[in-house]
Amino acid sequence: MLTSAESDRLRVVLVSTRNPLNIGAAARAMSNFGFRHLRVVNPFAPAFQEARSAIGASSILKRAGQFNTVAEAVADCMLVVGTTAVRDRHLHHTVRRSEDAARLIRRRLHSSNVALLFGSEKFGLTNDDLSHCHWLLRIPTHEDNISMNLGQAVAVCLYELIRNAKGKRESEKLSPASAAEIERITTMLLDALQSSGFLDLRRVGDSKQRIRRLVRRLHLPSRDAVIWLGIFRQIDWKLRRPGESEQK
Amino acid sequence: MLTSAESDRLRVVLVSTRNPLNIGAAARAMSNFGFRHLRVVNPFAPAFQEARSAIGASSILKRAGQFNTVAEAVADCMLVVGTTAVRDRHLHHTVRRSEDAARLIRRRLHSSNVALLFGSEKFGLTNDDLSHCHWLLRIPTHEDNISMNLGQAVAVCLYELIRNAKGKRESEKLSPASAAEIERITTMLLDALQSSGFLDLRRVGDSKQRIRRLVRRLHLPSRDAVIWLGIFRQIDWKLRRPGESEQK
Repeated sequence: MLTSAESDRLRVVLVSTRNPLNIGAAARAMSNFGFRHLRVVNPFAPAFQEARSAIGASSILKRAGQFNTVAEAVADCMLVVGTTAVRDRHLHHTVRRSEDAARLIRRRLHSSNVALLFGSEKFGLTNDDLSHCHWLLRIPTHEDNISMNLGQAVAVCLYELIRNAKGKRESEKLSPASAAEIERITTMLLDALQSSGFLDLRRVGDSKQRIRRLVRRLHLPSRDAVIWLGIFRQIDWKLRRPGESEQK
Repeated sequence: MLTSAESDRLRVVLVSTRNPLNIGAAARAMSNFGFRHLRVVNPFAPAFQEARSAIGASSILKRAGQFNTVAEAVADCMLVVGTTAVRDRHLHHTVRRSEDAARLIRRRLHSSNVALLFGSEKFGLTNDDLSHCHWLLRIPTHEDNISMNLGQAVAVCLYELIRNAKGKRESEKLSPASAAEIERITTMLLDALQSSGFLDLRRVGDSKQRIRRLVRRLHLPSRDAVIWLGIFRQIDWKLRRPGESEQK
């Protein structure tokens, strides 16, 4: 969970991106997750200009900074993190899984600018690009296909940054039926079962308790309680008055 | 962290997808995160056939099941989860944030098949599609732009499923320099500082301790220790023999 000021300290830096669709996809993911500062280094120029000036281009894309070198693109950042698909080949850098990396990045965003670098679709970040990085982030992809699409990799990294690390429960659950509602349904269902002869075929004794437990196990939302009540009421009414065609 | 058997119980179901590139992107994300079962319901047919039969199409795409209805596509699943960008509009369903949703899905994958549904790019899941869902998953996007690209949304959801919820540290850190290496560097640096006159200009006393702390704060990786040792040794040598041009 980042504040808006913290989000604004992140610079997403795309290095030598070839496909302008991927720059657009990165910009869209940034917008989805509340980040604003996109920087491109040495993109395939004509296509980028076209993408940026297109009608419908996002404000993030329109305001993207363009740089000739990685050094210029990360000059105002206190932490520079490269992204890589490779696990073992980076003798010069510590490689952190995205889960751990995001925690460290979030901490730095409290007070400093942080650059997150993504390399070209074909080659990733070069050794020269990597020499600007303090350490590397790796998304834990499956060994059979480690290499992600650029736009999807950006989306996953930014999601990891904004996701609720504390696991705070924020589910917008439907409010459950109250005990009173469950009791009314239980009573009405019991009436209907009695009317139907269902209970006559079984041992009676604790039937009300058994039915109450049955209803409780439904985990009914409150908004559905009234509907079920109506259903059982109608069934019971019909069972008691088989001749009439409709309830008055 | 899912086992391979658990991953194989997930069905990614794309409903009424229009753009075959998005089906391809979903398949790629599945491959990245170790999932195999892709199902499409009522896709824009000619484009899908073309995408699936294209040279270079992934095995996931080639083996994707095609269905006419959601009911058929989810028939073998014990839990059906829809995805939505909307927070409030789902009176009929509990909406869970992706972080919480993934935990519940992982639990069900221990023993049951689970379907994860994604709607069309333009309209999302329809009310009819939603009526097949037990509950909904929402990626916590920023309110200014809640709607994600389909391929990116699939990538984020699958990433959340495979990410290491326990936060287990797996960083492939460079091994740090040993105490012995730090001590050798400290000694050599101290020699160099003495040779340079640096220490003469300051209070001596605990200078070795101060230098040792200074070196320790560098958090040197082991592989760099020998390099720094060489640098200080050379500097010290040069300081002691200002006349000579090179170390023998």
